[in-house]
Amino acid sequence: MALSQPVLLTGDRPSGPLHLGHYAGSLKSRLCMQEDYDAYIMIADAQALTDHFESPETVQRFVIEVAKDYLAVGLDPEKCTLFIQSQVPELAELAFYYMNLVTVSRLERNPTVKAEMHQKGMGDTVTAGFLCYPISQAADITAFGTPGGPVHVPVGDDQVPMIEQTNEIVRRFNRIYPGNVLQEAQVHLSNAPRLMGIDGQNKASKSLKNAISLGDDESVVYDKVFAMYTDPNHIHVTDPGQVEGNMVFHYLDAFDPDVDEVQRLKTQYTQGGLGDVPLKKRLFHVLNTLLTPIRQKRNSLTDGQVLNVLRAGTKKARDRVQNKMRQVRQAMKIHYSTD
Amino acid sequence: MALSQPVLLTGDRPSGPLHLGHYAGSLKSRLCMQEDYDAYIMIADAQALTDHFESPETVQRFVIEVAKDYLAVGLDPEKCTLFIQSQVPELAELAFYYMNLVTVSRLERNPTVKAEMHQKGMGDTVTAGFLCYPISQAADITAFGTPGGPVHVPVGDDQVPMIEQTNEIVRRFNRIYPGNVLQEAQVHLSNAPRLMGIDGQNKASKSLKNAISLGDDESVVYDKVFAMYTDPNHIHVTDPGQVEGNMVFHYLDAFDPDVDEVQRLKTQYTQGGLGDVPLKKRLFHVLNTLLTPIRQKRNSLTDGQVLNVLRAGTKKARDRVQNKMRQVRQAMKIHYSTD
Repeated sequence: MALSQPVLLTGDRPSGPLHLGHYAGSLKSRLCMQEDYDAYIMIADAQALTDHFESPETVQRFVIEVAKDYLAVGLDPEKCTLFIQSQVPELAELAFYYMNLVTVSRLERNPTVKAEMHQKGMGDTVTAGFLCYPISQAADITAFGTPGGPVHVPVGDDQVPMIEQTNEIVRRFNRIYPGNVLQEAQVHLSNAPRLMGIDGQNKASKSLKNAISLGDDESVVYDKVFAMYTDPNHIHVTDPGQVEGNMVFHYLDAFDPDVDEVQRLKTQYTQGGLGDVPLKKRLFHVLNTLLTPIRQKRNSLTDGQVLNVLRAGTKKARDRVQNKMRQVRQAMKIHYSTD
Repeated sequence: MALSQPVLLTGDRPSGPLHLGHYAGSLKSRLCMQEDYDAYIMIADAQALTDHFESPETVQRFVIEVAKDYLAVGLDPEKCTLFIQSQVPELAELAFYYMNLVTVSRLERNPTVKAEMHQKGMGDTVTAGFLCYPISQAADITAFGTPGGPVHVPVGDDQVPMIEQTNEIVRRFNRIYPGNVLQEAQVHLSNAPRLMGIDGQNKASKSLKNAISLGDDESVVYDKVFAMYTDPNHIHVTDPGQVEGNMVFHYLDAFDPDVDEVQRLKTQYTQGGLGDVPLKKRLFHVLNTLLTPIRQKRNSLTDGQVLNVLRAGTKKARDRVQNKMRQVRQAMKIHYSTD
């Protein structure tokens, strides 16, 4: 990592195993980004606790599991910094002060939070922690900013309002407190389409159990591929089949490196004369080729090795955040020389 | 301080000078409490910033000024621990996690917060920080609990809902996370009546400029006493005067050690034949006798001396809170051995 590399912050909530949806949507691009950015990859356990506060052991377990997923797909601790959010308590402190800069009604209007509240069936039960998690995200992002340039944040388009909220806080903070201590975040819109679940109904999601996890055994992957939703009207091999909404083609589009062959198969399938079984066998082979080295790397990692990586990364991240927090305290005049 | 003393937490927001209302309402009783309790007295600058976030220099200045007031009235750093809230960042971290245990609608129903929002004319402009300050208070209080007994919190009756909110959080936390790490707070209802301002309209308040500050010069005290609201119908000495609502008698009741003589003066005033001027002279003498040594002690203190006291107290308080936070992290399973 050269000092001149731009800073990037991204991460995941450790509330379940990472799956092919994560791989296609973010992990694959992070493998490139770790070459070009000073990349901080946060395991957002404190954020996961906003809606999993009653199952802390799940969150704790998936801190390790998600880190294993990261290392297994090829994120390299020599090139990027993996860290645990809760172990950088200055992020909570920073969020605490940002809370003075955001009105409750502004938070209630946040489209991402509104959509999530609706999806999770929260109404009067929404907690202060959940409502305020965009503030916590703003703290996470801005804590890594430098005067040299913005923090780059890769997001899907549904997350853009979160970055807008972050940048509102930055502008408000800098207007009130002197020194332009904070930097606005820079959105990196992901162009990866959302991977659907094997059910063909919803996007791949750990909570909907319709996803192929990165750590799934070969036999599990096989079963999931053969359970995939295809074209229910494609009963005989000779029937013309539909490609649109057919999860086998959706996954081949996402993961098969031989784009021309996939195109040829689509044509044949549409005309009739191609059954689901050879297609599923092909997809299983494609996925198994991708997942086997990941699974092997995953299985070779001990919890202790993973914790060592996280400890080193967390220390590096925390040093950086502490330095930022010193500047914030100075700007806010809550510093008192300690010697 | 013996180890077996019960723990007490109290404090003030540093947004202005402490005044006679504070003296009568809380400071005087703290002088006794520091003998019998392991008393922590918090200068709540982080809390002051929830509604003074745009004037951090005021808050910073009054951290020192309030500490001077404390020392000047006789709070003794050998007997109690004075500390600065913002310099114990674990309190913000703890509040951050408590936010997952409190719904937004519960906060919006808090009578103390509702009253304050109304009084300050907040509506749609209420910030997340202000709405959540009862959670922050809960963190401040519970951070000082020990298995040996509850934290004692002296409050006026308008603050009782805040302690109820705290204890709800304690029960919810202990139900979810194992080990009974938190202890419910014990309310110490103050029986001191609220001191009115010299205007006779509102209670004494720095923001209403109707209070006599502990640091006021003798001439300022004199002017304020002679500007006090008495009985507007008591025009001639011979007129019968009214004691009720008469601020001079209100203050004599609060501060004159000669209760019998005050009773005698009330009778005489009610019958007629006693003018305001001799009464005000008496009150000035009473207040000046109380305030002169406080003012002298105040003026003898340098900012450096005060900062040294605050640093030592903050270190002691922080050690205690860090120990508590370790237990909280363990119960919440957000601990990862750091060696």
